[in-house]
Amino acid sequence: MKIILAPNAFKECLSAPKAAAAMAKGINAVLPQAEIREIPLADGGDGTMEALVSARNGEIVSIQSSDPLQRKIPVQYGLIDNGQTAVIEMALASGLWLLSDSEKNPLKTTTLGTGEMIVDAIERGVTSIILGIGGSATTDAGIGMAEALGYRFYDAQNEPVAPIGESMSKIKRIDCSDVHSQLKNVKIYVASDVTNPLLGPDGAAPVYGPQKGATPEMVQILEQGLQTVSNCWVSDMNVTIGDLPGGGAAGGLGAGLVAFCGAEIRSGFDLIAEYADLDHHLKGADLAITGEGKIDASTRFGKVPAGVLRKANAVHVPVIAIAGQLSGDVESLNREGMLALFSIANGPLTVQESMDNAAELISQVCGQIIRVYKGRS
Amino acid sequence: MKIILAPNAFKECLSAPKAAAAMAKGINAVLPQAEIREIPLADGGDGTMEALVSARNGEIVSIQSSDPLQRKIPVQYGLIDNGQTAVIEMALASGLWLLSDSEKNPLKTTTLGTGEMIVDAIERGVTSIILGIGGSATTDAGIGMAEALGYRFYDAQNEPVAPIGESMSKIKRIDCSDVHSQLKNVKIYVASDVTNPLLGPDGAAPVYGPQKGATPEMVQILEQGLQTVSNCWVSDMNVTIGDLPGGGAAGGLGAGLVAFCGAEIRSGFDLIAEYADLDHHLKGADLAITGEGKIDASTRFGKVPAGVLRKANAVHVPVIAIAGQLSGDVESLNREGMLALFSIANGPLTVQESMDNAAELISQVCGQIIRVYKGRS
Repeated sequence: MKIILAPNAFKECLSAPKAAAAMAKGINAVLPQAEIREIPLADGGDGTMEALVSARNGEIVSIQSSDPLQRKIPVQYGLIDNGQTAVIEMALASGLWLLSDSEKNPLKTTTLGTGEMIVDAIERGVTSIILGIGGSATTDAGIGMAEALGYRFYDAQNEPVAPIGESMSKIKRIDCSDVHSQLKNVKIYVASDVTNPLLGPDGAAPVYGPQKGATPEMVQILEQGLQTVSNCWVSDMNVTIGDLPGGGAAGGLGAGLVAFCGAEIRSGFDLIAEYADLDHHLKGADLAITGEGKIDASTRFGKVPAGVLRKANAVHVPVIAIAGQLSGDVESLNREGMLALFSIANGPLTVQESMDNAAELISQVCGQIIRVYKGRS
Repeated sequence: MKIILAPNAFKECLSAPKAAAAMAKGINAVLPQAEIREIPLADGGDGTMEALVSARNGEIVSIQSSDPLQRKIPVQYGLIDNGQTAVIEMALASGLWLLSDSEKNPLKTTTLGTGEMIVDAIERGVTSIILGIGGSATTDAGIGMAEALGYRFYDAQNEPVAPIGESMSKIKRIDCSDVHSQLKNVKIYVASDVTNPLLGPDGAAPVYGPQKGATPEMVQILEQGLQTVSNCWVSDMNVTIGDLPGGGAAGGLGAGLVAFCGAEIRSGFDLIAEYADLDHHLKGADLAITGEGKIDASTRFGKVPAGVLRKANAVHVPVIAIAGQLSGDVESLNREGMLALFSIANGPLTVQESMDNAAELISQVCGQIIRVYKGRS
């Protein structure tokens, strides 16, 4: 029996590789002869690096980078495919989680650190980069990231401006003369499921600015700034972003990656599933088990369980999902094709107890599921 | 597919018939063509009457009886097999639950009310009685019960004594001349899993007396009283109870039923399973699902899940158990033959939430289990 274990991370509790390992442990105890494939997944957000490094037997490198306020911090990114591909999570350098509440201010923050990670990967000789861009502290259209790559930004007085949110509206000219020579040899794939455009009422500033600390006045300033940068892309770089879906992701970093790096924006799940060879592994499998921290019938599945379901059902592989918490009308999820859904809870317990014992609970319920699955006489 | 649903009650939460109905609801939604048999079970304790009345489509009768302190109270018992068999729970008339803490005193309590229920059943023409005897407030060797049936107890002065615990040691003579004329036509089966004898260090008084409110001095008095009654059984009725297993059940009511009524003490689960035709229903079944409120690997199964497992495995029917709470090393229970075990919990929740939503949670998890069971392609 070939079984594919393809969970998302159980948020704030268990990484996807650890969740997959816990599933495998429970199944192995019941069915030692099963052919098990652990394919930890992610959707481009939290856990993307760990999932892909694990799925592809890659390595993690640690470097110095800059946080959203340009303080030096240690960060990590992954290298897979014998160092050919880097897996970078923007949030590790430029994420909102790095700031205290009083520090949250997208006028002052920058994606510089993300750019420094890209530069490090480029100089190690990667030919492609997978860049997850969830959870940013920034609304800078990627000018911080671009500065690290050698782009320079000048105001009306031809003075260089700092690559932070509030500088955007002052930019008159982008200087591309000193861009990193190896950038053109690297293909960057942006993993994002945000489809907002850069500008306008659905754009980066009004939709995501407030959660990063922007007041209504700041949102106005940021919107003008994003418009200014967008105009410069046209005038100085001959790049038109327009209403490209995902351009507004990560405070316009999505658009910035396209403009400054020729990046391609992809669905996070699809990109990671592709790199994890999910389709290949699903072929000929008897069963796939996915999972995540919460599955709520009203919000349907998260991106990973839904993606696994779609891909597995396409090749007629049944899928079972497990969750720390399973809410609402579970049967409605069955109607969408999920064979079955189980909670990992073994009785009344608190969220903390569930999280503290998640690995063991996952092993246990997966063992019991497989016993039923194989035990039909 | 033929599926047997044979749960115990989920204690303080859901009766066995309601638990079975919840299981059926969840399975029906998935597999409307399944041949489902709801066989609610019990072990002779709480829920015995409701389970058997439901399993055998019986009826419940309400009568006036006496509580352990001889106060009039309404009680119920079941009639099954077209009124041929009564199902009586001693605790409904003579249970500890009827007394406040300050009222608990086995010197003063009596099984009179249980006897009144037996008389009522006899006079309705039953030919057999199933009598569950868990949870008594009494240690009276069944003299209260016997008094209701027409037995009379006299002291050394040939004065009648009240049929309560403290009277036992005063009894010199049992008068059997006025015993209910139809008693001999009725077979009484005592459902009990207590194996303690009437007398001695493992007997009714020292082992169960304290939890009924007996002080060490009372235990001495009760032990002497039980011994006195036992002697009278030999001298006046030619009945020797000796160390009959179960004689000490329910404060010696076990022995009293044997002595006064010619009753037979049976394993509670086996007796109820027999009346519920469990063996018959299991034949040719594809799956049995049992369950109870708590399943703890350290204490193994409760009597009902363990009994269902034993009987089902004997005819090669796989068994799945569900529980409100599943504790400890579940795999050790698998090794004892249980195909699989699942909690009904759908995520972190309190005991109260689990109990409030038990029926829905049972339906849900049973539906998901059956989806896996049938869904293997």
